[in-house]
Amino acid sequence: MSHHNVKSTFVLGGARSGKSRFAENLAQNSGLERHYIATGRAWDDEMRARIAQHKHDRGPLWTTHEEPLALADTLKRIDAPSRVVLVDCLTLWLTNLMMEETCDIKAESAALAALLPQLSASVILVSNEVGLGIVPENKMAREFRDHAGRLHQMIAAEVADVYFVAAGLPLKMKG
Amino acid sequence: MSHHNVKSTFVLGGARSGKSRFAENLAQNSGLERHYIATGRAWDDEMRARIAQHKHDRGPLWTTHEEPLALADTLKRIDAPSRVVLVDCLTLWLTNLMMEETCDIKAESAALAALLPQLSASVILVSNEVGLGIVPENKMAREFRDHAGRLHQMIAAEVADVYFVAAGLPLKMKG
Amino acid sequence: MSHHNVKSTFVLGGARSGKSRFAENLAQNSGLERHYIATGRAWDDEMRARIAQHKHDRGPLWTTHEEPLALADTLKRIDAPSRVVLVDCLTLWLTNLMMEETCDIKAESAALAALLPQLSASVILVSNEVGLGIVPENKMAREFRDHAGRLHQMIAAEVADVYFVAAGLPLKMKG
Repeated sequence: MSHHNVKSTFVLGGARSGKSRFAENLAQNSGLERHYIATGRAWDDEMRARIAQHKHDRGPLWTTHEEPLALADTLKRIDAPSRVVLVDCLTLWLTNLMMEETCDIKAESAALAALLPQLSASVILVSNEVGLGIVPENKMAREFRDHAGRLHQMIAAEVADVYFVAAGLPLKMKG
Repeated sequence: MSHHNVKSTFVLGGARSGKSRFAENLAQNSGLERHYIATGRAWDDEMRARIAQHKHDRGPLWTTHEEPLALADTLKRIDAPSRVVLVDCLTLWLTNLMMEETCDIKAESAALAALLPQLSASVILVSNEVGLGIVPENKMAREFRDHAGRLHQMIAAEVADVYFVAAGLPLKMKG
Repeated sequence: MSHHNVKSTFVLGGARSGKSRFAENLAQNSGLERHYIATGRAWDDEMRARIAQHKHDRGPLWTTHEEPLALADTLKRIDAPSRVVLVDCLTLWLTNLMMEETCDIKAESAALAALLPQLSASVILVSNEVGLGIVPENKMAREFRDHAGRLHQMIAAEVADVYFVAAGLPLKMKG
């Protein structure tokens, strides 16, 4: 009778680590109706090309929702027990939030984490680990990795399973 | 009859990975008298705010020692079997050493690692992994991550337990 | 009767993580005739010093082949079941490929990965994980970590064992 959603999963990994493909395979293997929330904003050609490539790679069995900011609202709106919802990725969502002038990112992060146990869909959240390099010289980059690290801790605390992906291989951290 | 201090622990993790909180929980759970060596130097407002916040978060049950350079001497001075000593963090200590003109960092690193098995206190050392990003363009940053990587290897070889922390979750690497 | 080379190993780690020493110990413990393919190019004093130091550290029991580009050809040429071949490292090889104007890096990466199961030597490949820091501002650095991430996934899929090394400690990801 726990309210904890035992099917929620957090997939953390580096750039080009295979984390998205691993998350997509988890979603596919669930047998549920697949929904995809793309948080990336197509604000330049490099980004536009990546988004289009990813959409093409996923194929037609996915329903895609593009949502750069209102992630919690979108999760609530499309929530259903028959669905698996893949959010890719949290670091792009954070990037978008940081560009909003009046956004309280800690509050948004806490609200997203608090929502997860209340959803009936299986939710898989993907994010980039960005805190394992040299301290960035750029102040905004330092703030970004602080926001990302805090969000990752909050999300990891609320989900059932956490994987760290490197070189396409998952390492189970929780679950 | 081993001289090896079986209670020493090395906690390695990224920025905002939850490594300090994990280390503080280890210290608290030891039931020993808690001492904290803060190696960070309050050389600007951003740093001063972080140090003050950390001190406030730890609460009144900790005795705090601020020591930017003479880490080994401080460990020897406060050493006692009734104590757990948390060093947070080694990368800030390295940063301070690099600002000293006449410092032999390899020798200092080796001396710290060699001291650990001789202490009677339970020692928990926290450090930032900084070597998993792109090679920095800045030469001093490259030297810094070389120093950090070498120090981490030396420390990991001397302690009983090593944890890698990501998203607040510990992964045991040794012990 | 599998064509899969069960002795091949991929060692991934950060800068100064101890990954090369770990790989060298694997090679030494194999009891096989040791060959070393150094992919680094001595294009400045810092690099020259590193290469010379590494060669000195390995000692006289190794046959060293310096090969910045034709890695697959070199592996084929020196292949023999009596040998262990250590490739150190893939990220330097990628760096060299990126400096060639007409190189198809995805094709080169795929060709190297496809070659591995066909070799009779025990092959140990070392590489730097570079995708766990902040997104680099430099476009070439972003391309580099994309190439590295893709190559690491391809290599990890073809070898028998994969280790992630941090602070000198191996974490087995596969095998």
